[in-house]
Amino acid sequence: MREEPYFFEISKIEEFLKREKPKKVLIQVPDELKKHFYKHFNHLKRKFVNIDFIFSADPAYGACFIPENEAATLGIDAIIHVGHTEYYRSNLNIIYVNAFSNLKPSPSTLNNLASHLKAKGITKVGLSYVIQHKPIVEYVKKTLEDNEINVFIGEKSGLAKYDGQVIGCDYSTALKINNLVDAHIIICGGYFHAIGLGFSTQKPVIKLDPYINSYEDLTKIISRYLRIRYSKIMKALDARKYGIISGARRGQYRIGLIKELVKLVLRKGLKYEIFSSDILTVETLINMDSEDIDVYVVTSCPRLPIDDLWEFEKPVLTPGEAFMVLEENIQKYRFPW
Amino acid sequence: MREEPYFFEISKIEEFLKREKPKKVLIQVPDELKKHFYKHFNHLKRKFVNIDFIFSADPAYGACFIPENEAATLGIDAIIHVGHTEYYRSNLNIIYVNAFSNLKPSPSTLNNLASHLKAKGITKVGLSYVIQHKPIVEYVKKTLEDNEINVFIGEKSGLAKYDGQVIGCDYSTALKINNLVDAHIIICGGYFHAIGLGFSTQKPVIKLDPYINSYEDLTKIISRYLRIRYSKIMKALDARKYGIISGARRGQYRIGLIKELVKLVLRKGLKYEIFSSDILTVETLINMDSEDIDVYVVTSCPRLPIDDLWEFEKPVLTPGEAFMVLEENIQKYRFPW
Repeated sequence: MREEPYFFEISKIEEFLKREKPKKVLIQVPDELKKHFYKHFNHLKRKFVNIDFIFSADPAYGACFIPENEAATLGIDAIIHVGHTEYYRSNLNIIYVNAFSNLKPSPSTLNNLASHLKAKGITKVGLSYVIQHKPIVEYVKKTLEDNEINVFIGEKSGLAKYDGQVIGCDYSTALKINNLVDAHIIICGGYFHAIGLGFSTQKPVIKLDPYINSYEDLTKIISRYLRIRYSKIMKALDARKYGIISGARRGQYRIGLIKELVKLVLRKGLKYEIFSSDILTVETLINMDSEDIDVYVVTSCPRLPIDDLWEFEKPVLTPGEAFMVLEENIQKYRFPW
Repeated sequence: MREEPYFFEISKIEEFLKREKPKKVLIQVPDELKKHFYKHFNHLKRKFVNIDFIFSADPAYGACFIPENEAATLGIDAIIHVGHTEYYRSNLNIIYVNAFSNLKPSPSTLNNLASHLKAKGITKVGLSYVIQHKPIVEYVKKTLEDNEINVFIGEKSGLAKYDGQVIGCDYSTALKINNLVDAHIIICGGYFHAIGLGFSTQKPVIKLDPYINSYEDLTKIISRYLRIRYSKIMKALDARKYGIISGARRGQYRIGLIKELVKLVLRKGLKYEIFSSDILTVETLINMDSEDIDVYVVTSCPRLPIDDLWEFEKPVLTPGEAFMVLEENIQKYRFPW
């Protein structure tokens, strides 16, 4: 039998349900994990027959994206959010449950990674990870140290709940040790978190990918992404009217940020329009785009402009980029806010 | 200068804003109308400088899809909903504003339509329309009558606000006159409403399309859609586990319907799972699909299974279809609930 790819903190859910005794529970799971979670869901239903469970079919991009509103409509009294750590303090009764990956890179992959680092003259590295790979952090650290690499793990900071943890829009733990290291290693799949880490630290980034048992130096790719960002920033310098896009969920509604942007826009004698959006895609942007708007700023999520909306014909900026433009201070890339 | 394609009831909005004096207003406009509405939006902003206007970027499929939750997050005290008539009574302060089309089919198109009807032996027709084409109803009626066609317009009924009006999930006005007519004419673009009219009335349907100044007999196309529906129904007959999908917005949350379906499922000794969804797409379904579920029933909107989800590998039923299967009464097609 194949080993399960994820270990879910099911006992934590059971304790929560026994303690809180909710009547109607909404379960929110990221798309990639939904199918893996189902068998545990069936187990929970058999164990808690008096609870009405509702499974949210919608995407769950992060713990900023809690369906508080959906919960209100459906009369939900507790939410089980799987796969992300708490992002903001909600008035709802929410439990955040980790989904830990059971994958780990082989010792030879880590030895090769260490050789790669040494060949580049890198002896001091930061080690970061996304939450599902937390179980292998010590193993990775020790194996690299056995290969004479100095490994630094940043103390938990910002929105992180654990030392070394990073999330899509917060790399505070890595920044804590940024001055001590030559490069950053991040344990994750895909490019998403590695790009954020590179944008935040401005140092070389090597991704250690447990899904494919391999590492990849992403420094060049990240600098290519950064060039795309600067092309958007340059395009935005002449903008006369800003479209400021607000999130529609509590965890993505940043009214302070919006007010700050509006103040800067008005101070420069420019114009603006406020939009709200729950799920922002290129298609949404095409449909809502008004011809008198020259640039959009997405305040709901700073990753949308970088990862999803970079192909839109008008520049779509992160809040950090908008501040760079509005404050005419474009030398240092500001990320994400 | 080209004539504007839509006439928006802007004076109705102005009266509403003067009377209600809201501080923060959310504007919700269907995607096809967003760009047309913008110039009026700019006009409103100049006229009501003390109001904070926020333009919703998200889709607005119908007046069942009011962003009540978004409004709560953003601290909105009034909503302007453009393009649909009221669907349900909300606790929010909402004004429903029509967007009337300025297009009309030429007299020769209507004369040709009358000849087509007579060639088919049809002398008595029902006349229905979607709200934006209300302004031309009398013109169409009179022109057909001048051609010796008897035209019946159903009294307003169900969710319709005007005689003859139909919406995607409610054809009550057409049903009021169904026994009196040989066929139905519907003024609309696309197939969406024509299919609903055909499913509801089970009579021939001819679409009169102002966008392309032309008519089209859709009777065969509708019967093809109906055959697809029956293929789904047949597939669902052996289902052992139902996935019942609930809407996440108040206008799409049909708890009574869900309870009725659950009761029938349990009475037959079958199993079920409840899902919630805000915007349901094939992609959402693929991501949320659990292998032990054999059939899905969409209770949020009966059009989704027919128009958007018919390609999904498992049968996805409307509530009406689910009742047909669960009550083992599949002779007469039941639409939509």
